[in-house]
Amino acid sequence: MIAKRYREMLNQKSVIREISAYGAERAKEIGYENVFDFSLGNPSVPAPQIVNETIARLALEGDSLAVHGYSPSLGIDGVRQAIADSLNRRFGMNYKKAHIFPTSGAAAALAHAVRAVTEPGNEVLAFAPYFSEYVPYINESGAVLKIVPANPEDFQINFEAFAAMLNPNVHAVLINTPNNPSGVIYSADTLRKLAALLKEKEQAYGHDIYIISDEPYREIVFDGKEAPYTSNYYDNTISCYSFSKSLSLPGERIGYIAVNPACQDAALLVEIFGQISRGIGHNCPSSIIQLAIGELLDNTAELQVYETNMHILYDALTEMGYSCVKPDGTFYMFPKSLEPDAVAFCNKAKEFDLLLVPGDGFGCPGHFRMAYCVPTEKVVRSLDAFRKLADYYQQR
Amino acid sequence: MIAKRYREMLNQKSVIREISAYGAERAKEIGYENVFDFSLGNPSVPAPQIVNETIARLALEGDSLAVHGYSPSLGIDGVRQAIADSLNRRFGMNYKKAHIFPTSGAAAALAHAVRAVTEPGNEVLAFAPYFSEYVPYINESGAVLKIVPANPEDFQINFEAFAAMLNPNVHAVLINTPNNPSGVIYSADTLRKLAALLKEKEQAYGHDIYIISDEPYREIVFDGKEAPYTSNYYDNTISCYSFSKSLSLPGERIGYIAVNPACQDAALLVEIFGQISRGIGHNCPSSIIQLAIGELLDNTAELQVYETNMHILYDALTEMGYSCVKPDGTFYMFPKSLEPDAVAFCNKAKEFDLLLVPGDGFGCPGHFRMAYCVPTEKVVRSLDAFRKLADYYQQR
Repeated sequence: MIAKRYREMLNQKSVIREISAYGAERAKEIGYENVFDFSLGNPSVPAPQIVNETIARLALEGDSLAVHGYSPSLGIDGVRQAIADSLNRRFGMNYKKAHIFPTSGAAAALAHAVRAVTEPGNEVLAFAPYFSEYVPYINESGAVLKIVPANPEDFQINFEAFAAMLNPNVHAVLINTPNNPSGVIYSADTLRKLAALLKEKEQAYGHDIYIISDEPYREIVFDGKEAPYTSNYYDNTISCYSFSKSLSLPGERIGYIAVNPACQDAALLVEIFGQISRGIGHNCPSSIIQLAIGELLDNTAELQVYETNMHILYDALTEMGYSCVKPDGTFYMFPKSLEPDAVAFCNKAKEFDLLLVPGDGFGCPGHFRMAYCVPTEKVVRSLDAFRKLADYYQQR
Repeated sequence: MIAKRYREMLNQKSVIREISAYGAERAKEIGYENVFDFSLGNPSVPAPQIVNETIARLALEGDSLAVHGYSPSLGIDGVRQAIADSLNRRFGMNYKKAHIFPTSGAAAALAHAVRAVTEPGNEVLAFAPYFSEYVPYINESGAVLKIVPANPEDFQINFEAFAAMLNPNVHAVLINTPNNPSGVIYSADTLRKLAALLKEKEQAYGHDIYIISDEPYREIVFDGKEAPYTSNYYDNTISCYSFSKSLSLPGERIGYIAVNPACQDAALLVEIFGQISRGIGHNCPSSIIQLAIGELLDNTAELQVYETNMHILYDALTEMGYSCVKPDGTFYMFPKSLEPDAVAFCNKAKEFDLLLVPGDGFGCPGHFRMAYCVPTEKVVRSLDAFRKLADYYQQR
């Protein structure tokens, strides 16, 4: 009597979560310090102290009904305005409060965005390598996810394959930059080409095609780079953001959707998001967490450690013979596996207590993902295991 | 290009929210103290100080990764165990951690429960008067909500009408006790009769029929009464709880589902809830809020004020000639309107700055709902307006 579709989802549980669970068990056997677990994208740096101080102040000094009372169904007004102001300042946009919708992280933002702009059966295109949880978000919306093959040379968009897959049933294109799992930032040139192609197809098909832009790693960029802001390149852009990574708050489930004011029906879209939340019974994110982040929009956790870790790993691994596109940001990298079957490769890595995730689930067989949001001393100690793994393949 | 189904939902916005928004506008004109707004079920008493102290302590003294890190997809283990322990202690149950699933309030709990135990097109029966937001929760799940007419004499279940509506396509029955909007507690006798009838039909139809029990008012009971715990009467019970009312935390979106261990596949149901969350991108409630309520399960806000308000209103209104089933709990009452058309009646009440909600949206025309979660001094001052309204109808 249990709904069949969810029973089936149980059989496709997150591979990442399973590897991470294995890591926790293995740590009990040989000690946490001896398991080099690169599976899970759980930030390793603490939330900034000011986040905790702000939450404590709101709890102890705020008016209870204002802090803990129902928030309006589209989010707390002052928080929405503060988010609009911050984005306008940083990216030269002209968002108003009416274009901002607080969500339970980027996950909810993406699931809402897809529901709002597709009818059941419509196609959403995403680009390999892609975050594997896009599959449940989009499947459950009723839309159909199709994956554009990767351009493994630099992990920018494979425009040839993309153009061939565009058709009148495509109503949204999902991009993720800086990218999980490759760490690559889509260049201004990539975004310009993408925008031009979509505008042409909107004309040809006679309907809007939205870019749903998944941007939780926007603040984690390396070597002084900047991530171009998608909305600056394309009007029909819905930006999905999370504070999980920038403020190290993944458990608090807080993020937002920002609809480009140049979108068709931009403010109406936000009202639609409210109705989607109503139907799934989820209403707004926690009110105290909304209020806290509303005060802290220009803060981040100490994100530099991810850049340090990236350089250590990239330099050492490429020197050992691993091949990898150099990450521009995030806390992921996506090297080639040392045998064509990445699942077999990651199983072999386990023997050295290196926990890596096969690229297959990201739409890119022959690669593996490393989440290097782990303490730097552990990154350094892991290099020996990577070397042994490389030696094994060289001696085969 | 915006999804049609959500556009249509926009046309059926919450009547309660609209009346409440009118009240906020009217308050700007004539002063907040002069608007007797009984529209919204927003708790009027503050959260207990210990809730705020606990949140502050977790923020300032807790380990950041433990407090703000990803919680497991089925909720934080210790919190789930604490909820199970508390329910076992209070209601003589034998829940384990595996039967508990933290949710974003009772709203999410209900929406998850319906999705888990129905296939699209299955019927869910609920009893008038019923909380109007059941409509979007159930419509969006793909199931079909059918309403059993009220028994307006005492607002217990109308078993004759219920028996006539049962059929093999019914897979769940949604009850709400203590009841919004009537304030009535379903008696042990009512629950026994309900359980016996459903067990008989489970046999006859050859499949489970779940009771989804909406219990956010469980702690708000008057005159020393107790609300019988549904799971003590029926095995296939899924309890949906919220801390919104008991701890005055509606904005924090925190509650849980407790699946009776005697349910078919009880622990599997909880895993299914996790998959439902995954598909809508909502994962768990805020981690710091989960941790806080996990320590405070046996606390409540100062709920006595609702009992005080009920007695003042019930005594005065019945004395004025209003007819009303006496509430056993909650902070609602559901008197008969003084003309058959409750919408016209509530519009007339507006002229006296009394904001009441017509019973039509609760499946009970000819009644109106009052949410008396307002300061007692305001309740007392509102009596004059109720008297003028009654006088108007007597003189007509």
